[in-house]
Amino acid sequence: MAPDTVRIAVDLLGGDQAPAVVVDGALRACQADPALHLLLVGPLEVAGEIRAALTAEDRDRVHHHEATGDAAMRAAVHAVADGHAHAVVSAGPTGTTVTAARLGLGRWPGIRRAALAAVLPTPAGRVVLLDVGASVDPSPVTLTGHALLGAVYAAVAHGVAAPRVGLLSIGVEPGKGDAVRRAAALLLAEMALPAGAHYVGLVEGDEVVLGEHADVVITDGFTGNVLLKGLEAAYAVAGGRNPNDVPPRAAALLGVGGTVVVCHGAATGDDLASGIALAASLRRHDVVTASAGLLSPDHEVSHEHG
Amino acid sequence: MAPDTVRIAVDLLGGDQAPAVVVDGALRACQADPALHLLLVGPLEVAGEIRAALTAEDRDRVHHHEATGDAAMRAAVHAVADGHAHAVVSAGPTGTTVTAARLGLGRWPGIRRAALAAVLPTPAGRVVLLDVGASVDPSPVTLTGHALLGAVYAAVAHGVAAPRVGLLSIGVEPGKGDAVRRAAALLLAEMALPAGAHYVGLVEGDEVVLGEHADVVITDGFTGNVLLKGLEAAYAVAGGRNPNDVPPRAAALLGVGGTVVVCHGAATGDDLASGIALAASLRRHDVVTASAGLLSPDHEVSHEHG
Repeated sequence: MAPDTVRIAVDLLGGDQAPAVVVDGALRACQADPALHLLLVGPLEVAGEIRAALTAEDRDRVHHHEATGDAAMRAAVHAVADGHAHAVVSAGPTGTTVTAARLGLGRWPGIRRAALAAVLPTPAGRVVLLDVGASVDPSPVTLTGHALLGAVYAAVAHGVAAPRVGLLSIGVEPGKGDAVRRAAALLLAEMALPAGAHYVGLVEGDEVVLGEHADVVITDGFTGNVLLKGLEAAYAVAGGRNPNDVPPRAAALLGVGGTVVVCHGAATGDDLASGIALAASLRRHDVVTASAGLLSPDHEVSHEHG
Repeated sequence: MAPDTVRIAVDLLGGDQAPAVVVDGALRACQADPALHLLLVGPLEVAGEIRAALTAEDRDRVHHHEATGDAAMRAAVHAVADGHAHAVVSAGPTGTTVTAARLGLGRWPGIRRAALAAVLPTPAGRVVLLDVGASVDPSPVTLTGHALLGAVYAAVAHGVAAPRVGLLSIGVEPGKGDAVRRAAALLLAEMALPAGAHYVGLVEGDEVVLGEHADVVITDGFTGNVLLKGLEAAYAVAGGRNPNDVPPRAAALLGVGGTVVVCHGAATGDDLASGIALAASLRRHDVVTASAGLLSPDHEVSHEHG
């Protein structure tokens, strides 16, 4: 069965190497997915470069929305809010993207802080690691919010029946970790989690690689970002792994009312293409709506009692 | 030239799998290094097990100091303080070891907080990552102390002429990171560093793997520990690397007045053996005394002005 048609808004100006890598990524994504439509948000000449490289037939799948400078990312988010696109992809600064998405698309029930979720392949299955860059200096309550987001995402996107949620720390014995981890662990032990999920306690850095005890690993955006970038580089240097088994350099923004994918600022064309593919897949499987739907006001109460 | 004789105090009861893995590690270390002497600190029956597995000749290199329970690690540290051993190795709880070492061995000039330094092989040379577990919730001033420790260690242990010191963060542009990183970056930019070292600014998680911009990467013990355990697991899973090129599962404790090596609580016999070998090498090259000697009261002033 051919995949459903989906239209992704792409921020042509996001990323350290934009627009060149975005042009490259958009072309690769179009060629890989015949049912993909793109709304290119940025300067006309950049969109023109992409269209010129496509066949006349493919060109019909690519549209343009004029925007310049910092406005491109916000305009791409608004294209989703206004129904002109199904999802948005940007390699622009994470903080700016998160703010624009929250303001433009609203939030999930009970979630005050969005989180970026990276999915890491492990020998024991996929692990959702969040946050990887949206929440810096989070409160313990924000970490419990990440647990809600990760639990529903694992259930919906990966079909995990009863997601195991672990808290990243520096030892597995209760009480290990810094002040925010110790406080978050106490809250998590008392919380009701959605989607049949349960809290399995503390896990260490190797869990994100081995996937033995948790389907979801929650952490602050600082630690998650450092760990993800370290692992990406380690797999690249070590080699010996199937390229399909390395972490994708694109992350889903969970907790905002629309499908938003954030690529690393140092993204390559390949990374942008996989970010666009991730956005298309999330939309085709209705992941954001279904995930948000699993969060009820009950969880909001638990989530705020700390 | 045969290596100098050196005597290492080994905590027989440290580690999740103690004493079995310590017995194994001690035997491997003895067999690998004919000039190594061990002071086995713990129950007599464990020391006896090690001695029974050695030839009569090798047995003369192995001595015993009775201690039980939590006292074994402290007794091993005191053996160094009292001159009965040159260095100490433990896989016991990091916090306990650090406290015992600080109380038993004193501190380096200008350093209030010790740090665990891991050395990571990279395609561009060795990178010293610290702290990997001793300082949880450090102040910005403690991170500047890590910069002093890392700089002199890279100079002395690795012969780096003008060590480049980077601060681990989630972007390289000034201002990136959480509150403690932003404050530490301002202090580091103003500091005089010892050993000809200089601060190169922010680096990301991949730097610890690639080694392109820094010889020393400083961070808090939480982030460093998570990253190190993640990388160890990634290299193990990915394969494809020379076993000599993976991070050792032992770290030098810098900032205390003696040679102390801490192994992971989940250390294997191999890990213990490499921890003992690291301690022997640090002592033979007089790394701790020489590193501490490079820190003058000048650095103490810079270090405290935040």
